[in-house]
Amino acid sequence: MKDNNFELIEGGDICSPSGFKASGIIAGLKKSGARDLALIFSDSPCIAAGTFTTCAFAAAPVQYCKEVLKKGKRFHAVVINSGNANACTGKIGLDNAREMARITSTELNIKDKEVLVCSTGRIGVQLPMDKIKNGIKKAAVELSPEHGSDASAAIMTTDTFPKKCAVSIELEGKTAKIAGIAKGAGMIAPEMKGLHATMICIITTDAAVKQKFLNKCVEECVEESFNRITVDGDMSTNDTVLVLANGNAGNSPLRSKSKEAEKFKEALNFVMRQLARQIVLDGEGAMKFVTIKVEKAASKQDAVACAKTVANSLLCKTAWFGGDPNWGRILAAAGRSGAKLKPEKFELYLDHLCAVRNGMGTDIPEEKLAEIMKNDEFTLRLVLNCGKASAEVWTNDISYEYVKINADYHT
Amino acid sequence: MKDNNFELIEGGDICSPSGFKASGIIAGLKKSGARDLALIFSDSPCIAAGTFTTCAFAAAPVQYCKEVLKKGKRFHAVVINSGNANACTGKIGLDNAREMARITSTELNIKDKEVLVCSTGRIGVQLPMDKIKNGIKKAAVELSPEHGSDASAAIMTTDTFPKKCAVSIELEGKTAKIAGIAKGAGMIAPEMKGLHATMICIITTDAAVKQKFLNKCVEECVEESFNRITVDGDMSTNDTVLVLANGNAGNSPLRSKSKEAEKFKEALNFVMRQLARQIVLDGEGAMKFVTIKVEKAASKQDAVACAKTVANSLLCKTAWFGGDPNWGRILAAAGRSGAKLKPEKFELYLDHLCAVRNGMGTDIPEEKLAEIMKNDEFTLRLVLNCGKASAEVWTNDISYEYVKINADYHT
Repeated sequence: MKDNNFELIEGGDICSPSGFKASGIIAGLKKSGARDLALIFSDSPCIAAGTFTTCAFAAAPVQYCKEVLKKGKRFHAVVINSGNANACTGKIGLDNAREMARITSTELNIKDKEVLVCSTGRIGVQLPMDKIKNGIKKAAVELSPEHGSDASAAIMTTDTFPKKCAVSIELEGKTAKIAGIAKGAGMIAPEMKGLHATMICIITTDAAVKQKFLNKCVEECVEESFNRITVDGDMSTNDTVLVLANGNAGNSPLRSKSKEAEKFKEALNFVMRQLARQIVLDGEGAMKFVTIKVEKAASKQDAVACAKTVANSLLCKTAWFGGDPNWGRILAAAGRSGAKLKPEKFELYLDHLCAVRNGMGTDIPEEKLAEIMKNDEFTLRLVLNCGKASAEVWTNDISYEYVKINADYHT
Repeated sequence: MKDNNFELIEGGDICSPSGFKASGIIAGLKKSGARDLALIFSDSPCIAAGTFTTCAFAAAPVQYCKEVLKKGKRFHAVVINSGNANACTGKIGLDNAREMARITSTELNIKDKEVLVCSTGRIGVQLPMDKIKNGIKKAAVELSPEHGSDASAAIMTTDTFPKKCAVSIELEGKTAKIAGIAKGAGMIAPEMKGLHATMICIITTDAAVKQKFLNKCVEECVEESFNRITVDGDMSTNDTVLVLANGNAGNSPLRSKSKEAEKFKEALNFVMRQLARQIVLDGEGAMKFVTIKVEKAASKQDAVACAKTVANSLLCKTAWFGGDPNWGRILAAAGRSGAKLKPEKFELYLDHLCAVRNGMGTDIPEEKLAEIMKNDEFTLRLVLNCGKASAEVWTNDISYEYVKINADYHT
């Protein structure tokens, strides 16, 4: 692959693309008193695309977004609260999601259905709508191209750092930008239609893009980014990726199969993968970043299943935490993944070292393997030798701290 | 259901059924110097049935047992070592499993193919055959109807207590007995043909049973016992359940659909469920025993999938450890299980308390729910209201201790 067709914008944020403003304020939903409501707004109308959790208990804002994205053609804003997921909240919850859109539209002088809504945080508690209302008013006043960082901070829950990424690309000699913010550290195993997790990602771009191409791009890029990460194997009720494109860059609207469209997709993919990577790096209690590569699988489905089964294996994750090259656990996980496997042809590499060949341990000394497992970051490469498909999944270890965070989160 | 047709034998063990002898000795495979090789022997020939892991990297002894069970009609012995799984050991491993059978047959003056073999412990290391050979010789000398307890101790790995159960039943006025021993504390999520886990269970009975009926019984009882437990969601390379029946009780051989056969099956089911329960009670680092009941599901498959997804959810397990009634995590897990769900009809009970009705929290105060979750044992009942199927799964919480045990196991 040749050099990238995009450039990273150092210090860029969700407002890097032209025409976007944002804010992140304290609505009073988080006990900690931290920022908990974000607003992202474009003066020019945007087209939008989204993917959502496949959980049967999809949260009210997810139901709401799916509905308006299906009907609506133009959007101006996204309002996001943290501290409360508005999930398992029944009809009242759905009314509250709509009410969030209505309040936002009034403040911004746009239509209800031009507002998208996200929530993240505790499940099963109704939103305190008085706080939400005052929060949205405050957020509307605070909107500014300078307040992108506040927005990324306001969507955090158990995250320890805000996640963002911005790039620029040249389209027909014009400069377009793509920027994203994301949140998520636990309940991360996206499978958005697919995603699983509470992860929320909002992407803005000033590129002009055709709706159909945007939908396709979002689906394909999510598949190779957020759908390839797992922290704890637990899909959330609220997983959401939303992309807004306002066309301010002035390029001719991108459609499939053009060279410019490919550039855009490559850049969007990069932004999503950067954000997905940041989520895994911030995995609850995580000490290590582990890349699982499955190669020469009989099918893509096999490759993904095999990589995810290893990534979600509690025995593997605790061994990684212990820096223990117990490769038997990796093989046991691969072996129950349902992927086609020929034990006698199976190979496993820890970074550059071949730990298993022909389904048996090699003579690489255990100390050498242990050295790699003690690093903060390493790659496990499983070569199935059953076909040509491959997949890469990012994950992390499970530490005492993960247990602590999740035994105590609620109370 | 009327009173049980069987009686528990207090202090019974694997040698309670007539004609069985056992031993458990120190072969020197475990660093700790504990007992690590068990032998179970019947003078009279037995018919045998087994179920095994579905892991693609099935261990050598699993491959060996499947082969001899397919061909063989009569068996006399089972030899089991702990401390080494003989898994991912290639052709040498398979030869070693055969050699274990051969050595045993020589010592006991029977045929190779009349010996079944099991291994459990570390994956990926060849068996030290000198120690195995001396161990088997010692075990053969030690065989006695009095040494059943030694056998149950010798198959332990990370188990903190030996698992056993024995019952007696009346068949045509004659007393028959069924007894079992099991091991397993981690890598427990049996799905034996299905099982997942390193769990090993050996059952002896002096009842006379027709082969076909025994096969059916074992399959059905495993489905309702070992295949309904999960400690960590990790299936093992070595999961094995073996049942040997020598017919010493003198009843007419049991076949399907007779009243006596039903009694036998009920008793076998009880023994397997008791052993499965003991495995979960001894789950690595476990502080709590949690029963997940799914009721009114659209299908049995849905009920099992839903119960297992909740049982394996890391977020649920850590919340249980924390004694935290965070039911949102339970709904999120149920929601991604793939089971048919109608959120507005969903109910969740913590023991007798209804925490969720119509997919939303009830007004039971959180403190009341927390009281239940602080108990050592509780039941979560998920009522889907989508059909008539149900399933029950036993599991436990994930504690700091689980992480500690599994981060350190290998080294």
